[in-house]
Amino acid sequence: MDNQTRKLLFEKAKEWILEAGNHIRDVIDEPLYIDTKSNPNDLVTQMDRNTEKYFAKKIKGEYPNHLILSEEGFGDEVDNLKGTIWIIDPIDGTMNFVHQKRNFAISIGIYQDGVGEIGLIYNVMEDVLYTAQKGQGAFKNNKQLLPLDKKLPLEESILVINSIWACENPVVNEKKIQELIKKVRGTRSIGSAALEFAYIAEGIVDGYLTMKLAPWDIAAGAILVNEVGGLTTNSNGETLDLLVNNTILSANKQIHNKISNQFVELK
Amino acid sequence: MDNQTRKLLFEKAKEWILEAGNHIRDVIDEPLYIDTKSNPNDLVTQMDRNTEKYFAKKIKGEYPNHLILSEEGFGDEVDNLKGTIWIIDPIDGTMNFVHQKRNFAISIGIYQDGVGEIGLIYNVMEDVLYTAQKGQGAFKNNKQLLPLDKKLPLEESILVINSIWACENPVVNEKKIQELIKKVRGTRSIGSAALEFAYIAEGIVDGYLTMKLAPWDIAAGAILVNEVGGLTTNSNGETLDLLVNNTILSANKQIHNKISNQFVELK
Repeated sequence: MDNQTRKLLFEKAKEWILEAGNHIRDVIDEPLYIDTKSNPNDLVTQMDRNTEKYFAKKIKGEYPNHLILSEEGFGDEVDNLKGTIWIIDPIDGTMNFVHQKRNFAISIGIYQDGVGEIGLIYNVMEDVLYTAQKGQGAFKNNKQLLPLDKKLPLEESILVINSIWACENPVVNEKKIQELIKKVRGTRSIGSAALEFAYIAEGIVDGYLTMKLAPWDIAAGAILVNEVGGLTTNSNGETLDLLVNNTILSANKQIHNKISNQFVELK
Repeated sequence: MDNQTRKLLFEKAKEWILEAGNHIRDVIDEPLYIDTKSNPNDLVTQMDRNTEKYFAKKIKGEYPNHLILSEEGFGDEVDNLKGTIWIIDPIDGTMNFVHQKRNFAISIGIYQDGVGEIGLIYNVMEDVLYTAQKGQGAFKNNKQLLPLDKKLPLEESILVINSIWACENPVVNEKKIQELIKKVRGTRSIGSAALEFAYIAEGIVDGYLTMKLAPWDIAAGAILVNEVGGLTTNSNGETLDLLVNNTILSANKQIHNKISNQFVELK
């Protein structure tokens, strides 16, 4: 994608994400209609659906040739990454949205033939917009984020990890995860993957390890982290496949390497 | 303590905590002087010390008979809870303060002969002050917080727990903790005990379980949670001893009861 095309697309995406966020803030105190999806803790609200519909309408109106890969079913059937694809989570962190009415985000990643071009993560209630365009750095409310500290030792890092991965589970050797948890300076868990990626890009946490994320949880965050010199792969260090769920490891390259080689043992 | 005495004391404490927080915000971007205490991850900064000194000076100037129990050594040698005691953490969540420059709090609990009278928790960077006076409810920036939902089932609750307690450890049976983590709807970890208590009082998380907190981590939070109908004890359900470190369980009474009876097995 050339710089001019990317810039115009970025401006549109930014306008729409801010507008969608404004609307959510306006109605945040109205009653919620909550369903559950695959299991009782996989929540979805009318707000997830309406926000996704809003983006689908805007995108299809302005860019009829673009495709949409998104969480709630108003996008396209996408079975390859050819062309321009908007990968959208209308509300990332729905459990936080429902229980906390904060700590959730709108996440939009725009990919061209599989290459991440534009990432936007909007912390709606704090009105903080994280943005990145390929090769042009990452920003928090228009202020450029610094490159990640490449020399930070694992022992002094803060790792985002949900405590579930320290428990016996079918995906990863929990004993090695427990070793990792004891090795780092501290662990945190916020409950919105998009914000957790954004916080890595911002440098307030230093790594993110999790065993199952959908494409729309990852798409924007991976671009953002890349733009500050970090690396996002599956937890084995292999390239992501944005058409399916992935395990995820995101961090500066040194920490990434150490975690993936020494502490992740998939079952 | 009579209502009038409590009210005057509350107003003073509120004035001082806001002033201390304002100062921290003013200098948040200046370089930090960081030491470690008992272990490399137990951080302390000049800001912790200066803030505590500020409170000690104010309290001793205005209330020479009051005692101070605090983290950094500028308080008194307190070996019983007689009299009026200010229990202070000048910066709760020092790791967040150092790494994130947010998600930390000033915490002040005022006790009269062992009874919690006043609690203040100030989320400095968000300028959000949580307050409680005994028998008068809890407030967030002067807006009264609602009583906790007594009927919330454990399965639909969000539990604050650090992933370290799901790992093999000398304090608690981690297998039972892992069962608990799988039972609840989700877990979170923020990294400031004071804020984690405040978030329970606010109802955005539903329980907090941890195996080691100092008196200054607990003093204000326990009062706040109490004022919205929640319960804070050690993890076995026994009354707290504010002169020593405690294990901690804080939640609405139903969830508290279930966790302490079914999931906490101290070693």
